[in-house]
Amino acid sequence: MEMATSEPSSPLPQPGSSDQQQIASASILLQIVMLGLAFVLGHVLRRHKIYYINEASASLLLGLFVGFVANVSNTEAHFRQWFNFHEEFFLLFLLPPIIFESGFSLQPKPFFSNFGAICTFAILGTFITSIVTGILVYLGGLFFLMYRLPFHESIMYGALISATDPVSVLAIFQELGTDVNLYALVFGESVLNDAVAISLYRTLLAVKNHPLETHGLMSAIWSFLEIFVGSLSSGVGVALICALLFKYSGLAVHGLQNLECCLVVLFPYFSYMLAEGLGLSGIVAILFCGILMKHYTFPNLSEGAQAFTSGFFQLISSLAETFVFIYMGMDIAIKSHSWSHVGFIFFSIVFIVIARAANVFPCARLVNMLRPASRQIPINHQKALWFSGLRGAMAFALALQAVHDLPNNHGGIIFTATTAIVVLTVLVIGGSTSTMLEKLEVVGDAHGHESLPEGDEEEMEGLTTSYDNEHGNPDSVDLLTQKFQELRRSTATFTAIDNNFLKPFFTKEDRRRNSTDQAPNGRLREGLISNPR
Amino acid sequence: MEMATSEPSSPLPQPGSSDQQQIASASILLQIVMLGLAFVLGHVLRRHKIYYINEASASLLLGLFVGFVANVSNTEAHFRQWFNFHEEFFLLFLLPPIIFESGFSLQPKPFFSNFGAICTFAILGTFITSIVTGILVYLGGLFFLMYRLPFHESIMYGALISATDPVSVLAIFQELGTDVNLYALVFGESVLNDAVAISLYRTLLAVKNHPLETHGLMSAIWSFLEIFVGSLSSGVGVALICALLFKYSGLAVHGLQNLECCLVVLFPYFSYMLAEGLGLSGIVAILFCGILMKHYTFPNLSEGAQAFTSGFFQLISSLAETFVFIYMGMDIAIKSHSWSHVGFIFFSIVFIVIARAANVFPCARLVNMLRPASRQIPINHQKALWFSGLRGAMAFALALQAVHDLPNNHGGIIFTATTAIVVLTVLVIGGSTSTMLEKLEVVGDAHGHESLPEGDEEEMEGLTTSYDNEHGNPDSVDLLTQKFQELRRSTATFTAIDNNFLKPFFTKEDRRRNSTDQAPNGRLREGLISNPR
Repeated sequence: MEMATSEPSSPLPQPGSSDQQQIASASILLQIVMLGLAFVLGHVLRRHKIYYINEASASLLLGLFVGFVANVSNTEAHFRQWFNFHEEFFLLFLLPPIIFESGFSLQPKPFFSNFGAICTFAILGTFITSIVTGILVYLGGLFFLMYRLPFHESIMYGALISATDPVSVLAIFQELGTDVNLYALVFGESVLNDAVAISLYRTLLAVKNHPLETHGLMSAIWSFLEIFVGSLSSGVGVALICALLFKYSGLAVHGLQNLECCLVVLFPYFSYMLAEGLGLSGIVAILFCGILMKHYTFPNLSEGAQAFTSGFFQLISSLAETFVFIYMGMDIAIKSHSWSHVGFIFFSIVFIVIARAANVFPCARLVNMLRPASRQIPINHQKALWFSGLRGAMAFALALQAVHDLPNNHGGIIFTATTAIVVLTVLVIGGSTSTMLEKLEVVGDAHGHESLPEGDEEEMEGLTTSYDNEHGNPDSVDLLTQKFQELRRSTATFTAIDNNFLKPFFTKEDRRRNSTDQAPNGRLREGLISNPR
Repeated sequence: MEMATSEPSSPLPQPGSSDQQQIASASILLQIVMLGLAFVLGHVLRRHKIYYINEASASLLLGLFVGFVANVSNTEAHFRQWFNFHEEFFLLFLLPPIIFESGFSLQPKPFFSNFGAICTFAILGTFITSIVTGILVYLGGLFFLMYRLPFHESIMYGALISATDPVSVLAIFQELGTDVNLYALVFGESVLNDAVAISLYRTLLAVKNHPLETHGLMSAIWSFLEIFVGSLSSGVGVALICALLFKYSGLAVHGLQNLECCLVVLFPYFSYMLAEGLGLSGIVAILFCGILMKHYTFPNLSEGAQAFTSGFFQLISSLAETFVFIYMGMDIAIKSHSWSHVGFIFFSIVFIVIARAANVFPCARLVNMLRPASRQIPINHQKALWFSGLRGAMAFALALQAVHDLPNNHGGIIFTATTAIVVLTVLVIGGSTSTMLEKLEVVGDAHGHESLPEGDEEEMEGLTTSYDNEHGNPDSVDLLTQKFQELRRSTATFTAIDNNFLKPFFTKEDRRRNSTDQAPNGRLREGLISNPR
């Protein structure tokens, strides 16, 4: 804090090279102090089991406090100057690790066994949310409830505000334990809907900038598929090449860990930059790169490199995420707000709550229609999914881009509103999460036996595979014939294809070694068998 | 490479936000590919024991090659644009990890036992080198041998070009084994002379910008001490606070490793930014922070965090260093050079070779006069030290600053010359290192038994302490009295103070548990006892 007042003489200096570097240093110094404080604060809160303020909230509040002090001490001009250069920095250096880690920390098995439901919520559901929010915002403008945005920009706003980030909900799930399928649904949906929201936003922007001669909708759908599938492919492609490289290069030996780690760290960033360089979405690419690298590359690493890379990605993403929340809090505190923005923010929140309900409950109905009776999504899980609609770094990132993409300061209004929505949802929903989830009876001791322990992937895998092989004999002579039999038996399940063909091809060990084991833990069985759509 | 030619239509576009981001992404993509290639190349060379091209040389050559291709394909305008934004990035993000790691990887025991000699070479010696080089460059200008720089700027050039970085020499020492004292001398001198060179450069800059009313020399010396001691203190202070924090915070328990690692990673950067924010040298601060954090903070970490942080710092610094060498190679290849610069570079190299001789041999003579006969620095060690005068990232960083600090494009000439000198010394001295060191008979099988194995700190410590306690009984009742006795007995040795007071105060375990052990390895004894000046 003493740095903030160290140069009060010149309100907005035009500094030379050396002064500028000194100011930049003081700014970074302040940021480091805040980062450290946020981590310590988060730790203290967790230790004392104070669930009303989670780590994200603590970072936000810290940012708000520092911004408030800057306002009071009239140093906010310095602040704005110092923290201005961060946009490119944010998009190129802070966001990629956050998104990669969310993919990398996703546990593949429950994710893939709920793949159908997650895709329904994330793809169909995000479309619904975006369009409902967009239409409501447009109507709100028409009826003078809030600032009036053009229809096209209302839908863009709907798309960017649809990216959820249920950081505090997931933290409480992990702390208190919950059903593994609910965890997979909430986490999986939040991860994938980022990809859909960003692709949708980019499509709308492309349509806006290049109004189409032919029938607009088909072209828009084509453009969406181009961005989504193209980005997905570049991420998946890089991850698979990476897996094969580590499978065959023989780097997983003692003494080469440094080289191994360097290369592993470079690949995700490569996928991000590849997609961006091709004009696609790097975020979508790095997300799928993360999911697939965890699944196929990670088992090919040496033990030391596995421990190191997990820790490394987690560290970098914690630092980046904490930094983003601090920054958002500070941004809200420093900016001067007009009351019209407050109206815009208030009605936006009302609309996104309605739009999320229009996503979750109909989509859940659809999923339940297609699922057998034993695997229905219960109503309290649906409510928990609806509740976990916090907004975070992804919405912020898209709003940051909207500032440049939209004319007449509409981008600025959207940016302010989005930042405020992120701050409010994190503080309010985040603060009430534990109470709400306990009321919904989806967490707590009653469900403790269903909680998701760390490192149970093996067990889950054993379970899934034992289901696949229920009627087969894996010791039979003709392995290929047997594989095809298995495949036919569970033809729709990605898990079977993965276990029989992809995993053996891309990873070192034959992970099917558990295939003849019986399920060691019957309780989890229902939840973990592959999706029988 | 396909990225380099993907936008050949507009030679120097003034891109909008989205295009600019796409270009930045393509540039970063290319850099990632080069980084990955450089690591693989370095690995292949090391595996095949090709010592003529070390990793730094491989990175340089890769950069030269890519720059050459860019020149041939007429895309160098794009390259210059892409790689232009890296100056602040370099000073704030690439250099700190490199310098921190050099301090962090320094083995404290042989360093402190040769502390007197290292300081002589690094402080007195770097002064000699700077001034001799500066005077020779000035005279060279006077006699039309090379471009004429003013006297003041010649000395500044002498200072910045005096920072050595014997990366390839040290790599070969580690590969082939050498005398532990020689290793400590070469490494320690290169680490500390960076600090002296940068302080000297900054002092000269300050004197230049604010010509002094009073007698210049005294003020200059005062200014030098202010920068050097101030920066040193902030680094040392932060490291000691960090050590105490980890000693008493109780973070080294299971489950808090993430928090522990986050904080450890933030502290070095904090020291850097603290010093820079105070107008001092962040590099000097982070260097001493690294040395002290390894010595006092590291033992307070949990085992997992120790493994992780070592790996983390090494990874980040490898990436940064490789990147810097690639960048330098590319810079040399892309720039158009006039022949006058070639003359400047050639004579600079001649002069720095002479100036380094004027440092090493007289200083070694001085050290030998003060040392007992058994600990003289032999002539082949002196020659090895003279030989290991490669220039690296530090000289490059100072030259980068000189571009802004000096008028009339003198900074530009110095920058070009420094980059060329770094490239040439790394390629030529680096390539001939193994031959030269074998000729000097300081490496190889004959000396294998004296080589420095990794993780032998414990052993060295045991040795050093056993010498200190030769006449004492550590099991005696009055521990404090005994400590004072020990201290009086070896009053000049930092090691004794450290073992008896500093280590127990700042670290968790009492590391004196080895103090009654006899030296397990008599051969190393001569080299490892503390400096009896």
